[in-house]
Amino acid sequence: MAEKITPRSENYSQWYVDVVVQSQLADYSPVKGCMVIRPRGYALWEAMQQQIDKMFKETGHSNAYFPLLIPESFIHKEAEHVEGFSPELAVVTHAGGEELEEPMVIRPTSETIIWSMYKKWIQSYRDLPILINQWANVVRWEKRTRLFLRTTEFLWQEGHTAHETKEEAVEETLKMLDVYARFAEEYMAVPVLKGRKTESEKFAGAVDTYSIEAMMQDRKALQSGTSHFLGQNFARAFDVTYQTKEGKLEHVWATSWGMSTRLIGALIMTHSDDRGLVVPPRLAPTEAVIIPIFKNKNKAEVVAYARKLYDEMKVKFRVEFDDDDANSPGWKFAEWELRGVPVRIEIGPRDMENGKVMLARRDTGEKEPAAIESAVDRVAELLEDIQVSLYKAAQDLREKNTHQPGSYDEFKALYEGDGGFADTCWCGSAECEAAVKEETKATIRVLPFEQENIEGKKCIYCGKPAQYRAVFAKAY
Amino acid sequence: MAEKITPRSENYSQWYVDVVVQSQLADYSPVKGCMVIRPRGYALWEAMQQQIDKMFKETGHSNAYFPLLIPESFIHKEAEHVEGFSPELAVVTHAGGEELEEPMVIRPTSETIIWSMYKKWIQSYRDLPILINQWANVVRWEKRTRLFLRTTEFLWQEGHTAHETKEEAVEETLKMLDVYARFAEEYMAVPVLKGRKTESEKFAGAVDTYSIEAMMQDRKALQSGTSHFLGQNFARAFDVTYQTKEGKLEHVWATSWGMSTRLIGALIMTHSDDRGLVVPPRLAPTEAVIIPIFKNKNKAEVVAYARKLYDEMKVKFRVEFDDDDANSPGWKFAEWELRGVPVRIEIGPRDMENGKVMLARRDTGEKEPAAIESAVDRVAELLEDIQVSLYKAAQDLREKNTHQPGSYDEFKALYEGDGGFADTCWCGSAECEAAVKEETKATIRVLPFEQENIEGKKCIYCGKPAQYRAVFAKAY
Repeated sequence: MAEKITPRSENYSQWYVDVVVQSQLADYSPVKGCMVIRPRGYALWEAMQQQIDKMFKETGHSNAYFPLLIPESFIHKEAEHVEGFSPELAVVTHAGGEELEEPMVIRPTSETIIWSMYKKWIQSYRDLPILINQWANVVRWEKRTRLFLRTTEFLWQEGHTAHETKEEAVEETLKMLDVYARFAEEYMAVPVLKGRKTESEKFAGAVDTYSIEAMMQDRKALQSGTSHFLGQNFARAFDVTYQTKEGKLEHVWATSWGMSTRLIGALIMTHSDDRGLVVPPRLAPTEAVIIPIFKNKNKAEVVAYARKLYDEMKVKFRVEFDDDDANSPGWKFAEWELRGVPVRIEIGPRDMENGKVMLARRDTGEKEPAAIESAVDRVAELLEDIQVSLYKAAQDLREKNTHQPGSYDEFKALYEGDGGFADTCWCGSAECEAAVKEETKATIRVLPFEQENIEGKKCIYCGKPAQYRAVFAKAY
Repeated sequence: MAEKITPRSENYSQWYVDVVVQSQLADYSPVKGCMVIRPRGYALWEAMQQQIDKMFKETGHSNAYFPLLIPESFIHKEAEHVEGFSPELAVVTHAGGEELEEPMVIRPTSETIIWSMYKKWIQSYRDLPILINQWANVVRWEKRTRLFLRTTEFLWQEGHTAHETKEEAVEETLKMLDVYARFAEEYMAVPVLKGRKTESEKFAGAVDTYSIEAMMQDRKALQSGTSHFLGQNFARAFDVTYQTKEGKLEHVWATSWGMSTRLIGALIMTHSDDRGLVVPPRLAPTEAVIIPIFKNKNKAEVVAYARKLYDEMKVKFRVEFDDDDANSPGWKFAEWELRGVPVRIEIGPRDMENGKVMLARRDTGEKEPAAIESAVDRVAELLEDIQVSLYKAAQDLREKNTHQPGSYDEFKALYEGDGGFADTCWCGSAECEAAVKEETKATIRVLPFEQENIEGKKCIYCGKPAQYRAVFAKAY
């Protein structure tokens, strides 16, 4: 805790690393590009998993588990898939003391191994839909890595569904995108933009990729969850057909969708500040901490008084009690702020005499006294208020930094300056998209679902008639 | 469901495979030695995880996550560890399109990568104890595999703790063995024998290994969880020292402990029967199923009547409602029996007229009528009773098949015949242990904690004075 966190204004990247490492969410490992998720980081992941897993189950999905290792030939069965993933594969060539007849790759994603099983499980329309999710680790050999945001190995979930019709598969794709958006906004307090990816940005093997995009405090975009309509691509690659109600043989329609430990990075970069982590209450492993403030002479009384409140609170909240002797109250305040606990409850001898406690909220730093009898109710209100305020602050930041540049010069100036989202128009050509990326490093994050009012508008780059409303940004 | 399950009396191994595959717990994958855990199997694993994870947290442990890939040199740092695990390693030699400078192994267990991190995190006694658990996949290249019981990749949890003193580490080792035993007996309804492993059976790198051993229905033993006292072996290998309260530098003391998806195999082989799976109620993803029995003319009334009970029940139990038109009641009864659901609730037109339901328990097949108003309470009682009965039946089987052979001839005859546990005595020599294994295939499962009354007794093999009470069995 003693180390100083680099202020955001000084060096945003270093600030991020300082927060992750000093709040002990994660640490660098001796394995190139891989990180260790420490208990405080993993507790956050567990809270996220628990909530989104519940949402998957409510929408009819079951969890299953498929092998980590995939025969190399499987990856080659879908042309775009192999092209996209080949450069990132980790390959097992030896095992059990012998060279393997066929090398195996560590899954970078599981479409191929899963569709090889679906071939076995699907014969008739009665076997459909299959709505399966997997919680797993995957490996993608990345050149440049960053804690949580891009690591060689990461934890994620990947949904893989199989359907009778195109319409059903498209509906599933969009339904799961909505689940991600709802999770990001209601639990992570991160507002997101929903839309479709361009050809150049879509998943290798998908017909269409949809994503949710969030704006970080440095005004860069972070892709926070993707949902893919795979058409019949993997069904064709693995020859998965089903007999329809009418007795015909058809290829099966597919979706896949995933979100990962990268979301922890999104959470940190959306809410945290120069004092450390800020965690939205609904996902906070610890919602409140009680810190009795005492001297030797009054320790017993103050601690007993505070502990009574703790006993009452722990039935309703995830609450910690810090009566450690070894550290000063000031040290503890800073430590629990660093860890991002939403509400701090201070109780000193004077508070005890007056039947009061002091409540401090992590997001604004505001303090307020409360009568001890009403402390539980007030903490519940504060938690709700913090959740809403964090969302609101992120939304304000995004609004303030979403621009509609009137010309490509204005557009360029934006990315030479503060950056942000450029909500503008695009002719649909890959050349314009590539040129913009080359010249400004901004990419099309999504083609938003709301596409009204492009009549008469022009492509921000070439000036030809616009085909799409497109949101550009520099991205992680 | 249409396929027939091979009876246990005919071919126990085939019966096991039939139950696993036909009840759709798992399936063979195209990857040698790896299986796919299907949704019904994974739901069982989730129920087990949830319970034991709670027990870990109640005993002060936190979850974390360490890299899948371990530099090969790490495995070589502990002499016994490398000897034990080298033959089973899967090795990544290429990644990102290039040959790696140093090959990486896929973790067979994580002591080495974790202790390389503990070196970074531990400086002083203030940093101890570290009580970390990891839920993860591991790979051990096995020659002969069996669904759940022994697979090349499996899912498990591995606890890794670091302590100031030997006493504290030994206490932790035994505490976690007790957690496993409690989980096996109270939740899985599997009675277990606790004790210490011999030198030849202990974990590669441990000072002492303790295990819980269960008896399967074929009277073979299944090791169902192990807890290792690692002494200072890994602390020395990775040079992990801490400053004591007195200012001295000491090596840290360690434990590790694990249980895996193998336990699903133990559960199946303890309770299931020739009609399929039998799942103990406390771990059953579905505790009860309601099956309305109707003809076309009365379908609406019967289903509405049954659904009222379902609505009432689903608040209290994990309950399913099967009013599918496509299959007959008889087909459904067999199907839900195959899946192992503890209680079946049948409701036909006659039951409806009389305000009754019919309750059928999966373990004994017994049926009893109940008034619909008391059905919820009666199902709760039945679930409790089934949990207790399953445990009792397994205990009876074990008692009936635990022998105290009076001579080595009797011992040999036992393993030429029905097998079981031989609760006998051993001189402590590795030669006798090896000879018994060679001649009978029985191994020492544990040296039980209760070691009284060996005074004057003799080794079952060589006849020299006994040093230990030892329980032998053939094992999975």
